[in-house]
Amino acid sequence: MKNIVVMGGGTGNFAVLRGLKNFDVKLSAVVSMADDGGSTGVLRDDLGVLPPGDVRQCLVALSNSSRLMRSLMNYRFENGGLGGHSFGNLLLSALEKVTGSFEEAVQEVKRILYIKGNVIPVTTHQVRLKMILQDRTMLEGEGAIYLSDRIDQGYSSLFLEPYPKPNPRAIETIMCADLVVIGPGGLHTSIIPNLLVEGMSQALRESAAKKIYISNLMNRRGQTTGFKVSDYHAEIVRYIGDDIFDYILVNNQTPPEELIEKYAVEGELVENDIISSRVISAPLLGEWGIKDKADILMQRNLIRHNSKQVAKEIMKVVDYL
Amino acid sequence: MKNIVVMGGGTGNFAVLRGLKNFDVKLSAVVSMADDGGSTGVLRDDLGVLPPGDVRQCLVALSNSSRLMRSLMNYRFENGGLGGHSFGNLLLSALEKVTGSFEEAVQEVKRILYIKGNVIPVTTHQVRLKMILQDRTMLEGEGAIYLSDRIDQGYSSLFLEPYPKPNPRAIETIMCADLVVIGPGGLHTSIIPNLLVEGMSQALRESAAKKIYISNLMNRRGQTTGFKVSDYHAEIVRYIGDDIFDYILVNNQTPPEELIEKYAVEGELVENDIISSRVISAPLLGEWGIKDKADILMQRNLIRHNSKQVAKEIMKVVDYL
Repeated sequence: MKNIVVMGGGTGNFAVLRGLKNFDVKLSAVVSMADDGGSTGVLRDDLGVLPPGDVRQCLVALSNSSRLMRSLMNYRFENGGLGGHSFGNLLLSALEKVTGSFEEAVQEVKRILYIKGNVIPVTTHQVRLKMILQDRTMLEGEGAIYLSDRIDQGYSSLFLEPYPKPNPRAIETIMCADLVVIGPGGLHTSIIPNLLVEGMSQALRESAAKKIYISNLMNRRGQTTGFKVSDYHAEIVRYIGDDIFDYILVNNQTPPEELIEKYAVEGELVENDIISSRVISAPLLGEWGIKDKADILMQRNLIRHNSKQVAKEIMKVVDYL
Repeated sequence: MKNIVVMGGGTGNFAVLRGLKNFDVKLSAVVSMADDGGSTGVLRDDLGVLPPGDVRQCLVALSNSSRLMRSLMNYRFENGGLGGHSFGNLLLSALEKVTGSFEEAVQEVKRILYIKGNVIPVTTHQVRLKMILQDRTMLEGEGAIYLSDRIDQGYSSLFLEPYPKPNPRAIETIMCADLVVIGPGGLHTSIIPNLLVEGMSQALRESAAKKIYISNLMNRRGQTTGFKVSDYHAEIVRYIGDDIFDYILVNNQTPPEELIEKYAVEGELVENDIISSRVISAPLLGEWGIKDKADILMQRNLIRHNSKQVAKEIMKVVDYL
């Protein structure tokens, strides 16, 4: 059985994992620990726990439990002091408190949710993502960076503080992989934070695994305005220190005009400008109007990857390994 | 296998259930839904859910899951907007929101905690416990009644508002029982609230089950000051409308003097003043200094029933049925 490692954080990871989970592969998710927005940020500040949000999404994506248990994990309390907290975040944080270890907490949730595969925090140290803009303004925290609309004017550095040691399991998983999938996901807030952990870029360069980059569908205004696939690819390659990618998966399907218009405020479609035999160009949006149940769980974007289509293309690569 | 029903709410129930769970009997807990203090009260007010606190304690008492899962259920968040909430309460409330039904929530937790036995809310309607004192002051809510120090001066009425229909499963469980165990527990706040639900007293009168009353160990100052076993018994019998009890289980073991002194502020030991063949007088405190693991979970009182001793005495009655 082939070892596939999916790296990122947030909603992009969800689609890839949800799709691949139905195939006969050994799946691992290496997850960024930079999240500090919303419920996750409050839990970090109030309880001193590691950020549960992205890990929760990966656990739900890989879950074989009932739909009810998956709804429970994503359920958000609405009112009072609990308002905004997702139940799954509280579960991970309470388990971290009771067991004294975030990784043990993840293991327990794996048991409760009948998880196939592994969810591995890229580091188990408390870190904060920081960015220094061209004008020397410091953006502190993944939440602040995510909300900034000035990143497309350039930045001088992006780093984790303190500079963290990696989770040895994350390194090991990458070194033993047959295929590493990077993306889709927020470039500065989900993808690159993994590469800022000590030893991660080196592991990616040294691993004998094939590597595939899955491009985002939409640019984010103020963050990646006007980016084409080559811009995303170039920025990731800069952090890894080498162009490790054997494949670049891009979408060639056009969403309905009215959706593109609706999302014009947020950003425009990412155009592919790379012409190369390693580019896999495929319809990744699925059929409009027919909703995949798993897709309904990721309600943040309407223009998004269809988990089945993405998995189908990845599995073509896997079958070739 | 004999059907045993334990009725009450709060810590008293916990000891009885925890003890009986190790025997070969069919166990059901009928639980008061009047709780509105602490975490439970906040959840009722903020989310509009049914009170999870007492049900959570019964579920944990009956749980066959790992010690970790039981610690998780009782884990209380310490800081911020989550401060004071126990994780188990949040689990029950989130499940009630996701499933739309408190009873379904209980069923799900039963599955997660490998529960042997049933936990049955006495009613599934939202109710509030109210008490009118002799001077016509109204105490609103179980929390307010629990904290009052004027109840021993007499009260003119104690009722649930609105007057609730029973949970049909609670009635059915009592009618099919071989033995009903009432107490120990807060007289006005845990025991009597069950009897204020429509049809419950009638079911207790009509059920062919044997009935046993387990007396409290300690009076609560301002609530049951100076009460003897006959006072507790008489007040419960008044609400049931008949002296249904075949057995009255009382403790005959004296706790260490220093503990009695320490608890003098809260209340004094309950003396048994009933001389009758139906009184079972037994050592119910267990060995001092040797802590039962389960007992450690109920940290509210140090003078408390030992779950093994209580279960041993109940099982003598069961073996006789």
